[in-house]
Amino acid sequence: MRLVIGIDLGGTKISAAVADERGQVLGRGRAETRASEGPEGALGRMIAAVAEAAAAAGVDPRQATAIGVGSPGPLDLARGLILGSPNLGWHDFPLRDRLAAHFGLPVALDNDCKAGGLGELRFGAGQGARHLIYVGVGTGIGGAVILDGRLWYGATGNAAELGHTVVDLDGPPCGCGARGCVEAIASGSALARLGRAAARAGRAPGLLALAGGDPDRIDGGTVAAAARAGDPEARAIWDRAIRALGAALATFVNAFSPEVVVLGGGVAEKNGPAYVAAVAEAAGHLALRANWAPVRVVPAALGGDSALLGAVALALDRAGLPASTG
Amino acid sequence: MRLVIGIDLGGTKISAAVADERGQVLGRGRAETRASEGPEGALGRMIAAVAEAAAAAGVDPRQATAIGVGSPGPLDLARGLILGSPNLGWHDFPLRDRLAAHFGLPVALDNDCKAGGLGELRFGAGQGARHLIYVGVGTGIGGAVILDGRLWYGATGNAAELGHTVVDLDGPPCGCGARGCVEAIASGSALARLGRAAARAGRAPGLLALAGGDPDRIDGGTVAAAARAGDPEARAIWDRAIRALGAALATFVNAFSPEVVVLGGGVAEKNGPAYVAAVAEAAGHLALRANWAPVRVVPAALGGDSALLGAVALALDRAGLPASTG
Repeated sequence: MRLVIGIDLGGTKISAAVADERGQVLGRGRAETRASEGPEGALGRMIAAVAEAAAAAGVDPRQATAIGVGSPGPLDLARGLILGSPNLGWHDFPLRDRLAAHFGLPVALDNDCKAGGLGELRFGAGQGARHLIYVGVGTGIGGAVILDGRLWYGATGNAAELGHTVVDLDGPPCGCGARGCVEAIASGSALARLGRAAARAGRAPGLLALAGGDPDRIDGGTVAAAARAGDPEARAIWDRAIRALGAALATFVNAFSPEVVVLGGGVAEKNGPAYVAAVAEAAGHLALRANWAPVRVVPAALGGDSALLGAVALALDRAGLPASTG
Repeated sequence: MRLVIGIDLGGTKISAAVADERGQVLGRGRAETRASEGPEGALGRMIAAVAEAAAAAGVDPRQATAIGVGSPGPLDLARGLILGSPNLGWHDFPLRDRLAAHFGLPVALDNDCKAGGLGELRFGAGQGARHLIYVGVGTGIGGAVILDGRLWYGATGNAAELGHTVVDLDGPPCGCGARGCVEAIASGSALARLGRAAARAGRAPGLLALAGGDPDRIDGGTVAAAARAGDPEARAIWDRAIRALGAALATFVNAFSPEVVVLGGGVAEKNGPAYVAAVAEAAGHLALRANWAPVRVVPAALGGDSALLGAVALALDRAGLPASTG
């Protein structure tokens, strides 16, 4: 039996798995990510999480054939670097080669959203699809585009930046420097920002009450809850987020013509199938019928494990193992 | 020497070419498209245009190896049908098989915008590119996406419907039923519609004067001219069209990460390199730097021949001839 290792490096936690050549997880490990420790500290915690996963599987990690890692970007895929993580405060850290040197194994490093899409394709909601779009709606909005069964990287390696689709020419500023990106309207941090501004301006008393009167305690979940409870301003923010995501999905469907769209990430997970159905309905009103007709829009099936199992898939691909023929 | 035939079926005219196996045009033919004659009449005119091209090349059209056709959509590519052309008023016409039966040759039928993109890739502004986006800005806005040297069709055959990218959630209604598509803001017909409305409302006296006082005579060119002449409302319409196209281009660059973006179609052709530069500047403000950095945004090099030479390329591909290895 040949083994691989998958690692999901997140802004707050690290998950590791040891899996067999069919992608079955045999053991798991977990650690916190502490920004204060810097990349060297995180590397040590990743190694510890792998050791924990290997112990749970009853194997030595050096018995594995390859390692896959999903990491927040931006990355330099050719050189295996984390160029700089806004959440982690790293700069040009050679994560791929450091892990390879430690374990003596080949390492495949990729963007966490691309890993999430690959995980859903191989082991989750997208199994059997040839052309799949994955959209991860969390603190930010990221994506993965799978064409003919493979992740699409484009000329730069940075294709599938779906969160920076401009859906509102006059929309709010986005962290990327543009305006009206779907991420600036529909991500968890956008919902929080818009909700806090509305509460501070006195326009959303129901929302403010749900946050115990403290605007700083408003997050995406508070806005969603206030919208459900009938606060009109929270409802307007929430509905516009759904429409913005629907417009972005319609654009992707018109441009790529996929078979499946998978919606994942924290916001999608917390708000469940009704959220996915609402986004799909909004997209269906906007997409061209010919392209929309065959599309299935589905919630991610792997929950918080999309990127971890995608990292397993990256490792299987790197090792040339059977499940990699997808 | 092996020969192929290319046909560009347009809403107002038909162009035909006989070309050699390197895509060099040896003879050309031309005919009008008359909607009143229906598809049978247009088929006869296409056959006549091919005969004219063959005569100019000094060959019998039946000596050719294959025929390529670029046609307005929507098409059923699998069955070779024109499903229904809004401009031509046709319905489920089996153009591919009728041409094949007449000439006794294999026929490759494709969307005129996809043909335009392929023409620019093989013989025009996109030569040498692996990943290319073509955007044709004319009466409508269409596109072609070329990934790894091949046209991208997606699950339905209708991928690359770039004109229906939603860039303004609250924008004007589009013919497709959605709202705020780039086609509804930046196409020639959108410019005409927005310009006429402004003139009728008395908001664009300079524009109205340029149209001789008759709002119905305003077209995209009139709006462009009035914008250059300083009519503030025409200028606002024109600038918004540039921004909308820039936002759509930024979205494609973020999603596909191409090397080259080619801007063609009547509006791009009439307004020249300054127009293309203005759209590129708007896109550059919105796209992610990592994806934007390597992109060249260039005007179509083949002018009105993009789709005709793309049809030649379709025929070369169908025949398996050398230039098809692109």
